[in-house]
Amino acid sequence: MMGIGKAACIGGGVIGGGWIARFLLAGIDVAVHDPHPQAERIVGEVVANAEKAYGMLTTAPLPKPGKLTFRKTAEETVADADWIQESVPEQLELKRGILTAIERAARPDALIGSSTSGLLPTDLQRDMARPERFFVAHPYNPVYLLPLVELVAGEKTSPATLFKAQGMLAPLGMKGVIISKEIEAFVGDRLLEALWREALWLIRDGICDVETLDDVIRYSFGLRWAQMGLFQTYRIAGGEAGMRHFLAQFGPCLQWPWTKLTDVVDLDDALIEKIARQSDDQAAGLSVRALERIRDENLVGILHALQAGNGGEGWGAGKLLKDFEAHLWASAEKPEADVSAARPLRLMETKVSPAWIDYNGHMTEHRYLQVFADSTDALLRLIGADMAYVEAGHAYYTVETHIRHLGQARLGQGLTCACQVLSADDKRLHIFHRLHDAETGTVIATGEHMLLHVDAGAGRAAPASGSVLETVLRLAKAHAGLPLPEGAGRRIGGKPGEGAR
Amino acid sequence: MMGIGKAACIGGGVIGGGWIARFLLAGIDVAVHDPHPQAERIVGEVVANAEKAYGMLTTAPLPKPGKLTFRKTAEETVADADWIQESVPEQLELKRGILTAIERAARPDALIGSSTSGLLPTDLQRDMARPERFFVAHPYNPVYLLPLVELVAGEKTSPATLFKAQGMLAPLGMKGVIISKEIEAFVGDRLLEALWREALWLIRDGICDVETLDDVIRYSFGLRWAQMGLFQTYRIAGGEAGMRHFLAQFGPCLQWPWTKLTDVVDLDDALIEKIARQSDDQAAGLSVRALERIRDENLVGILHALQAGNGGEGWGAGKLLKDFEAHLWASAEKPEADVSAARPLRLMETKVSPAWIDYNGHMTEHRYLQVFADSTDALLRLIGADMAYVEAGHAYYTVETHIRHLGQARLGQGLTCACQVLSADDKRLHIFHRLHDAETGTVIATGEHMLLHVDAGAGRAAPASGSVLETVLRLAKAHAGLPLPEGAGRRIGGKPGEGAR
Repeated sequence: MMGIGKAACIGGGVIGGGWIARFLLAGIDVAVHDPHPQAERIVGEVVANAEKAYGMLTTAPLPKPGKLTFRKTAEETVADADWIQESVPEQLELKRGILTAIERAARPDALIGSSTSGLLPTDLQRDMARPERFFVAHPYNPVYLLPLVELVAGEKTSPATLFKAQGMLAPLGMKGVIISKEIEAFVGDRLLEALWREALWLIRDGICDVETLDDVIRYSFGLRWAQMGLFQTYRIAGGEAGMRHFLAQFGPCLQWPWTKLTDVVDLDDALIEKIARQSDDQAAGLSVRALERIRDENLVGILHALQAGNGGEGWGAGKLLKDFEAHLWASAEKPEADVSAARPLRLMETKVSPAWIDYNGHMTEHRYLQVFADSTDALLRLIGADMAYVEAGHAYYTVETHIRHLGQARLGQGLTCACQVLSADDKRLHIFHRLHDAETGTVIATGEHMLLHVDAGAGRAAPASGSVLETVLRLAKAHAGLPLPEGAGRRIGGKPGEGAR
Repeated sequence: MMGIGKAACIGGGVIGGGWIARFLLAGIDVAVHDPHPQAERIVGEVVANAEKAYGMLTTAPLPKPGKLTFRKTAEETVADADWIQESVPEQLELKRGILTAIERAARPDALIGSSTSGLLPTDLQRDMARPERFFVAHPYNPVYLLPLVELVAGEKTSPATLFKAQGMLAPLGMKGVIISKEIEAFVGDRLLEALWREALWLIRDGICDVETLDDVIRYSFGLRWAQMGLFQTYRIAGGEAGMRHFLAQFGPCLQWPWTKLTDVVDLDDALIEKIARQSDDQAAGLSVRALERIRDENLVGILHALQAGNGGEGWGAGKLLKDFEAHLWASAEKPEADVSAARPLRLMETKVSPAWIDYNGHMTEHRYLQVFADSTDALLRLIGADMAYVEAGHAYYTVETHIRHLGQARLGQGLTCACQVLSADDKRLHIFHRLHDAETGTVIATGEHMLLHVDAGAGRAAPASGSVLETVLRLAKAHAGLPLPEGAGRRIGGKPGEGAR
């Protein structure tokens, strides 16, 4: 994937801040210009939320975060950027002025995207000297978790620009979709606007309150739309009769009397007050900060669910996350772990995700094994038994596991896992993980595992060979002098100290 | 929760079939009338899908499914039902005729709900002699997974009817929301209709194709709406400035030129053909059957994610699922397991869920421990160390686990878990699980666990007492004569046979 080397963001509100977080967490340096006196604080808060969310989202190796700098002028901000993202308020003249200032200072090959949610790219690029590399790149809030970016060309945008932009968004874990023709509000906000208009009528006329309306969405089609959109869903509803039959049934409905509500509602003070009051009731005392946390945790959970979808292939936004992680693994520097050093390998760090907590408020039993298994996977990649190795028909399978719980992990706690090789031969790999509190170093749990090298096609144990076996044996030799970890070789219910070699 | 004793369904298409599945899986007998010659096949397919989905959705003890009978006339179908659900085609006169026929044969206290997605309850109940117990109960497809039911009263519906209906839906795992005033299409379909109308324009005018439109939804606001609706989402977007400020910004937008598209689109043959062709391309060869499977698996995954949301409390549809499971546990017959019998306890059955499969196509390592832990939870409930016991400050914690993998589990495979108590005293409980293929009985994995009884407040081991300790000791005594399971007491890398007492 083509990457962005340096990014520049003009405007650092909720949307600008979300872009900044996406860039930084992908390892890209970002220069920011925003005259708002609180800009650094606001951006800092969005980036902190994003870091928290990424900690839950993936255990793939995130690159070292990019460097964030604030600059006094738009010109100095954009000077050395490959991607310039404009996210200033929705005023045509303001945006035009900034865009012409930007392009004079920008590198000639830099792409310039606008976060506008409604203005036409043709209008925005009117005064630009080099409008061919300008386009709309419209994201959705929270930008650090929702992958969509609508890419829209103006009359003077070169067609190659959008494809280039799409390619450059992929390494950020974002989904750039190309909209064929520019119209105000593009596609997503058109749909939202239509639904919003209807919702305002329903509240104004007292058909339901805002909580009921939200419940109608999230207990029904909201669950559908997280994974399939409108047409794919209706395709299924049409069943064996097919899409044509389904659509034909819809024709008459469109002319039913309900369409009277396509009139524009007057969002006057009374209606604003009504909605705001009902919204306060619905929030039931939860602050915006708390709702934001719940939203992000839920989004992470939904993305994980979709990542496991379609028989493990991933589906929709979950497939995208899978691809993003594959990219992270591919771009990660090879683990620095020295396979010849006489010290346990520190192969992973993670954080206790909300999904890992049980009704007692503790980390659920099987999540400990998930962390140990992830650490084992990291070890296997280190010795060269990676995806390609598995695809070639060989693999290490875990045949036995022994876990001891010595403490408890709590929500959000940082964890590190250290791995010691106890012994190895051409078929067997005997390892011992210690799970530490990342802050204090206290051992919370240990995992002892026996892995067997197999020929997956034949379905039986088979000796490893080549560089994989070499690395395994080198590791085992390097670790042979380490003291046997406390608890290793123990049987359940055995005495302390039992098992020492 | 008030339950439904017997249900009657008039109409067994996709929607009627979904209702039937909800009732059956909640243990309720259902009588069905549908003159369609293929009715039994269609209903059977929906019920089979629902059974598959429930198998993935929950490990809580589902009741014995209700009995399904098909009847020749509507009258004999409804005669002894508490809840009668009408799901016939959307034709006012047809529905009116059926409703008056139904009510003559129905018990006087039976509730009568209509699945109509658009007709007014006042119009539907016009000719009824006892219209006060009639209402709209509008569900969403797939009815067996999406919890929403819009409850709408007509002029002659008694207010108590909707509350009673809401209460009777809860034990089905459904969310009945009461709509304050009747209008055509109620709330959900109003919103869908508005968005649908806009979508048709976007396709007709070539702004994007159906796949792009679906992607715009499912990579952005679809992910938001699975958990929060429109207003709660905007509340967050408004940030610290609050809902009133956010709304005030929206006023002018509503008058922008985009509102021209509120005109009604002509869904003519050319547009139908265009959409159908694009939809075929989007499906990329996936049959409706395959899409249905993917949809249901994704919905289950999303519901599970939301169940773990809000710090384990559950959120939205996930909270509802949590409540549904609590209800299932509370209504389950006490395990028949005889704690005095000299045989392992068969405490749980489950199926390998799509979320449990790794990139090798095998059940992921930590999911084995999840099944063992669920089985341990079932044992704890059996001995009386249940939720109430935990809330009172006592609990059994797992301190040590030993897993051996003897085979592999595959997607959809049925699993049963049998538990043998190896030893126990007032503090320790030493158990051994065998995980069997439900069909062949082959042992796929074993789990040996040491549990410690703790005083959770004091944070240390403490003796169990009372009936919990009594039951534990009775079990241990009953199992004392059983042969020690193969592999019990083994240390990792130990020799076969090692560990026998």
